[in-house]
Amino acid sequence: MSRLARGFAARGYTRGDALALASGNSAEFLAVYYACARLGLVCVPVNLGWRADEVAYVLGHSRARGIVVEAQLLEALAPAWERVPTLTDVLVAPGTGGPAGTGTPLAEIETDGGPVEVVVEDRDPLSYLYTSGKTSFPKGVATSHLTITMESFSAALDSGWGPDDRFLAMMPMFHTAQLNAFCTPAILVGAAIHVVRGFEPGAFLDTVQRERITQVFGLPMMYRAALEHDSFAGRDLSALRRAVYAMAPMPEPLIRACLDGFGCDFALLFGQTEMSPCTTLFRPEHQLSHIGAVGTPITGVQVAIMDAGGALLGPGEQGEIVYRGPSTMNGYLDDPDATAEAFRHGWFHSGDVGWFGADGVLWFADRSKDVIKTGGENVASLEVERAVYAADPGVAEVVVVGLPHERWSEAITAVVVPAAGADLDPDALLTALKERLDGYKVPKSVIVVDALPRTSTGKVRKNVVRESHADHYGGR
Amino acid sequence: MSRLARGFAARGYTRGDALALASGNSAEFLAVYYACARLGLVCVPVNLGWRADEVAYVLGHSRARGIVVEAQLLEALAPAWERVPTLTDVLVAPGTGGPAGTGTPLAEIETDGGPVEVVVEDRDPLSYLYTSGKTSFPKGVATSHLTITMESFSAALDSGWGPDDRFLAMMPMFHTAQLNAFCTPAILVGAAIHVVRGFEPGAFLDTVQRERITQVFGLPMMYRAALEHDSFAGRDLSALRRAVYAMAPMPEPLIRACLDGFGCDFALLFGQTEMSPCTTLFRPEHQLSHIGAVGTPITGVQVAIMDAGGALLGPGEQGEIVYRGPSTMNGYLDDPDATAEAFRHGWFHSGDVGWFGADGVLWFADRSKDVIKTGGENVASLEVERAVYAADPGVAEVVVVGLPHERWSEAITAVVVPAAGADLDPDALLTALKERLDGYKVPKSVIVVDALPRTSTGKVRKNVVRESHADHYGGR
Repeated sequence: MSRLARGFAARGYTRGDALALASGNSAEFLAVYYACARLGLVCVPVNLGWRADEVAYVLGHSRARGIVVEAQLLEALAPAWERVPTLTDVLVAPGTGGPAGTGTPLAEIETDGGPVEVVVEDRDPLSYLYTSGKTSFPKGVATSHLTITMESFSAALDSGWGPDDRFLAMMPMFHTAQLNAFCTPAILVGAAIHVVRGFEPGAFLDTVQRERITQVFGLPMMYRAALEHDSFAGRDLSALRRAVYAMAPMPEPLIRACLDGFGCDFALLFGQTEMSPCTTLFRPEHQLSHIGAVGTPITGVQVAIMDAGGALLGPGEQGEIVYRGPSTMNGYLDDPDATAEAFRHGWFHSGDVGWFGADGVLWFADRSKDVIKTGGENVASLEVERAVYAADPGVAEVVVVGLPHERWSEAITAVVVPAAGADLDPDALLTALKERLDGYKVPKSVIVVDALPRTSTGKVRKNVVRESHADHYGGR
Repeated sequence: MSRLARGFAARGYTRGDALALASGNSAEFLAVYYACARLGLVCVPVNLGWRADEVAYVLGHSRARGIVVEAQLLEALAPAWERVPTLTDVLVAPGTGGPAGTGTPLAEIETDGGPVEVVVEDRDPLSYLYTSGKTSFPKGVATSHLTITMESFSAALDSGWGPDDRFLAMMPMFHTAQLNAFCTPAILVGAAIHVVRGFEPGAFLDTVQRERITQVFGLPMMYRAALEHDSFAGRDLSALRRAVYAMAPMPEPLIRACLDGFGCDFALLFGQTEMSPCTTLFRPEHQLSHIGAVGTPITGVQVAIMDAGGALLGPGEQGEIVYRGPSTMNGYLDDPDATAEAFRHGWFHSGDVGWFGADGVLWFADRSKDVIKTGGENVASLEVERAVYAADPGVAEVVVVGLPHERWSEAITAVVVPAAGADLDPDALLTALKERLDGYKVPKSVIVVDALPRTSTGKVRKNVVRESHADHYGGR
């Protein structure tokens, strides 16, 4: 990591420069991230699900001077950075292999020498984490050294992690949860991290058993797939102390099966990129007594419920979930309006609606913003709605909602009203959308209806749409 | 605590105002400190060992608008604040009782109401902690909210503290170690604090047993006194998980007796006020393998050894111990020269001399200002002190100082307290030391005394020893 930082310095990178990183899970990913931290560079992880125009947007918007890219991604991503004149340095990590050619091998720039002496200040940005908001292009969440340090201390302290822990890193490191709620705290406490490039149930079980993994992080559907795998029975998973899941509470049958099957604690991590990301932990002691809740605040994060006028609400009262504390982002890069909007009334506005029980446990009700959380990604419903209108002139009206889905948490679903006399074909519409949207943004299904429910002022009542079709995928 | 913060606000205190606090250990001490934090006030703890002119200096220098004082201290301290025209508000905590009269009872200002809404920034000062330096009046160490938060996270994480812990607070809260290395982390993790006003061995043992105390902090001599107390045998101290001691390593016989007697972990806390205060922990696993060391860095603090020119030194090389990291003070209040001097070469200079072993364990050699310059040689007094202990078991305590001497400039001198019943022969001791030390390190004389002068935290006051014996060699 220090050898890499020296290498970046030798290539002219200095404190405040942005360096993009397009990589699957690997030791190099972490080495590049922490080398950026050491040198005061700003790391810009590239989401490997983005289209080329989104990648180009992020590289240009962040003013990345260079990019570290895994060999197998060169061909797909080169068209993106070729559109960005400010990006002049391409460094190639080995990854899973690819065509030789473009760029400088990362290993070649590593440099021996003395300590890397760069002093960074508390609120210097450490990364720009681009996250989808209401608009079609993602916003750059500027996280600072302090932000990530505070989040890491909180996560480690509240989870009881220590140097004897052995983490399995299988969720994408380009997402903040894997990177900042697991890898960085693990390094803070001196624990081991076993890096894998993805999830496959048999391999997952083999690794947990062989490596005596103590801490894992995955999606509910991954734990289910592992439980249902042929090789599950008779496994020695006794080293496992805690399995963390993200995004949404588990339904009761699954949480019971997980507790029985894995014989370890389960905890839900809840939060968002702007909060670095963890804000509440749904702790092991509440998993069965408060099924469906999202937990209690982690140390160092203040969580409250606010009404539309900025007043804080009491227990049992529903409103927007708002946050405050040192692990809050600096702001959205070059977007003072969005930043001011997000921090109105002195709190960060999550866009989530919820309430506190009298016992201090937080319950999540809904997204207030039209953002769908699907398979670990945020998707703006507006973007999908625009694509639907553009794809088929036979659509009179559409709302795009996330409906409960066992695998995706929320499955993107288009609810459409056909134009009078139009012969709307849902399959053709889906095919057309695949050409216009990233794969993960394409609706899982199209539901045709005669009319949409509306408020007295004519606004579509999305919550009613969601409730009407809640069982479309068989529920959670 | 919120009721008190509302009361301060109602009296006109606002963010940035300094409020002094003169109190023995009490629940009110903590309530006032955290109410200051809540409201953005700067708490200025008064050391109860200070002379009136030192108290007046601190109240004036910190521009304290008010003081919270325990009733029994009113009479002694009133002359100090009466000299400070800027201090206009006297609030009286019950303490152990005292004459009615001056000031407003603290309980009377407490105010019910809604949340206290003051947003503080990371580096807003939380306290000015006055600490004696080389000069006659103490310097005001400006600690920030961030400083104390980072220190608290580090202490809690590295010590494995959690909500089930029960702390005994018996060391003075006006010192940073009790306040910031124990009370604040305890509150951070939601642990219990049992507050007592001081140390008495029988009462200490009763409290640990009765309250099922899990974490204690004291001086080596306190643990010794408890071990030697009549009532020690047969005690149930089984709840005790860790005993922390401060200031200096324990000699081998004492640490062995402590480990055997208390049956819990022992750990040395090392640091200083400017570092909020903990920098290294001499951890349980090293207590017997590295006797005399001061430990390994706590999470979040960088520790290095620096030479006089600002170069960092490697393992085994002796130099000044320097620190860096987010728990470092903002600076000395209104003393930019001292602040710049302390932070030269980009690190905080501890004034301590030491070295790292190849295994990363830090060893303390001496205070840099206590290095004795004798006949052109520098001699670490600690090295000579260790030799004295080793040479003669009849020595209970020793300090080695340099006293003015016409020929040697400073003559190395051992000031010893004999063990009870020991017949200590100074000439025999000097003869024995000649076999253990380089000639120039052998004391020029041994002075036998009944007791050594100490600070309220138990540190030997070497400057007082030097002054008392300044004429021992006839002066310069």
